[in-house]
Amino acid sequence: MKSRRKGAYAEAGVNISAAGRTKDLIKELVRPTFRPEVITDIGLFGSFFQLQQYKDPVLVSSADGVGTKLKIAVLMDKHDTVGIDLVNHCVNDILCCGASPLFMLDYIAAGKLMPHKVASIVSGLAQACKEVGCALIGGETAEMPGMYKASDYDLVGFIVGVVEKGRIIKGDNIVEGDMVLGLPSSGLHTNGYSLVRKTFGIDRDALQLKMVYPELGRTLGEELLQPHRCYFRELQPVLEKIKGLAHITGGGFVGNIPRILPQGVSVEIDRTSWHVPALFDLIQKQGCIKDDEMYCVFNMGIGMVVICGQLEAGQIMDAVPEARQIGKVVKTNGSERVIIK
Amino acid sequence: MKSRRKGAYAEAGVNISAAGRTKDLIKELVRPTFRPEVITDIGLFGSFFQLQQYKDPVLVSSADGVGTKLKIAVLMDKHDTVGIDLVNHCVNDILCCGASPLFMLDYIAAGKLMPHKVASIVSGLAQACKEVGCALIGGETAEMPGMYKASDYDLVGFIVGVVEKGRIIKGDNIVEGDMVLGLPSSGLHTNGYSLVRKTFGIDRDALQLKMVYPELGRTLGEELLQPHRCYFRELQPVLEKIKGLAHITGGGFVGNIPRILPQGVSVEIDRTSWHVPALFDLIQKQGCIKDDEMYCVFNMGIGMVVICGQLEAGQIMDAVPEARQIGKVVKTNGSERVIIK
Repeated sequence: MKSRRKGAYAEAGVNISAAGRTKDLIKELVRPTFRPEVITDIGLFGSFFQLQQYKDPVLVSSADGVGTKLKIAVLMDKHDTVGIDLVNHCVNDILCCGASPLFMLDYIAAGKLMPHKVASIVSGLAQACKEVGCALIGGETAEMPGMYKASDYDLVGFIVGVVEKGRIIKGDNIVEGDMVLGLPSSGLHTNGYSLVRKTFGIDRDALQLKMVYPELGRTLGEELLQPHRCYFRELQPVLEKIKGLAHITGGGFVGNIPRILPQGVSVEIDRTSWHVPALFDLIQKQGCIKDDEMYCVFNMGIGMVVICGQLEAGQIMDAVPEARQIGKVVKTNGSERVIIK
Repeated sequence: MKSRRKGAYAEAGVNISAAGRTKDLIKELVRPTFRPEVITDIGLFGSFFQLQQYKDPVLVSSADGVGTKLKIAVLMDKHDTVGIDLVNHCVNDILCCGASPLFMLDYIAAGKLMPHKVASIVSGLAQACKEVGCALIGGETAEMPGMYKASDYDLVGFIVGVVEKGRIIKGDNIVEGDMVLGLPSSGLHTNGYSLVRKTFGIDRDALQLKMVYPELGRTLGEELLQPHRCYFRELQPVLEKIKGLAHITGGGFVGNIPRILPQGVSVEIDRTSWHVPALFDLIQKQGCIKDDEMYCVFNMGIGMVVICGQLEAGQIMDAVPEARQIGKVVKTNGSERVIIK
């Protein structure tokens, strides 16, 4: 069959050699995250992880994205922290079930695959994975011209962890009188970015990100890119003392705490019990946003909520100095499961 | 603090109640895929899967997207098959390692979350999961205004399967003289869509998808949306007789077969040994694409390559009637690992 064209696929916007270079860069970055249970190298059709030393293992998995925090990274042209956001988000989610991370896979899709950009993203993933002993064993990079703008990309993570069946944390033993502790967030974590972009008109005028706000002590862009904090190292040693854990992500307190509450109990949060960081005040003022909505969208300075018995509360606060009491478990009265006072 | 606005988050393009409705629709669709090992319901921070009845279990995982086949689905406004594509792609990938699917998680991101569209996508995921006994235990839907066009979306899957350590298939025992069998694909599967869109000018003129081609017996759009075929049910009973499996995805024969070949051996493919379906000829003529490039981008009618000993080849072809010999394993001579004759 006669053919006239060379490299029709490249003309269609898909660059196979960039994909090859990207894979090589990724290989070097992820290898240090491999733990002894990883029994394969990248390149096969699947990634192998040998499960060992568990009596009654339950696999706990979660899928997450970084949301439009990615837009901020793209506008700042800084890509080495969104991977940290993603890993820490995923690790915190399965931690809420009592699970320790085993391995993770990522998905990076872009209008155009830039090997150095992908490498920067993966360096963040690998760094955060190493910190919690999670193997970054696989993933997919996809070049999708026409689907994403050339500079845009999406980043998704899938994590698998493990917990012994008898040690699953799911909140079912929470009772009236239990204590509600909070652990500080490091900033917005990965939620509320669409609202923030709109509030500051960032999409219209990216220079907004360069503005220095005295109350933040740095530029808005730097503040917004602050990585999502991971709670695994702090909370893992005290998991046995904990009845319920709620990762405060999209939906805030109101959207997340009820996920772990059994029927009949609600949570009262005392909003004067911690200092709401300056960023949240700034967003609220700038956007004239109601208090209620702030608490339904943002973490307001508390990234992880711990529910435990009164006796254990003291022990946990001794072991995790940043934990503080922010509320208590009460009998449900009406339809509200989270009452913010 | 005074507030003037209502629903700033909704104004920023994020619709929390649509997200809630979407979650309810998803719950109903995925529940029938749950197997007895699934010990949780959706809503907790992680999804639970209890691992049972394995002596020396190795978890095999993979992450995949559907690529720009999604663009065709969007232009045809038909969303109930891309989920089938995704599940079957993932199941085939881990099948290449000898693994059976356990569970899957999905990620759906859109400029605007339309509950009925998400439900349609998830119905395809659930249908394909049920067919292979894979539990669709979790996932994430993300609304990202400004990142995707309102009608566009991305769809990513993450699968975890299991194989006994002694039964891993990785091609390391393939030797000269082994047979190469092929199983027919159902169409393009999920690769080469950027090239096809360019070749037919589909992005400029979506009506191209409505064209009926006599050699296809239906419209181009219908042909292009034909779901990715799954090989699990056919090949699972004969896995013990198989030395290597290569899922022919992006990169075609040349990109995929070498992934399972040990040093020193190559594969010779006889391209006259099967009938290349009409779609591939049509694409090649329309795009004036060279033969070599066709075989580096498309599956050319063979979706799964099986490598086995000569004795086993007959047994496999008896058990899997559609399998046929398409080549053989030879000693490597030069740098080529896949010689297409």
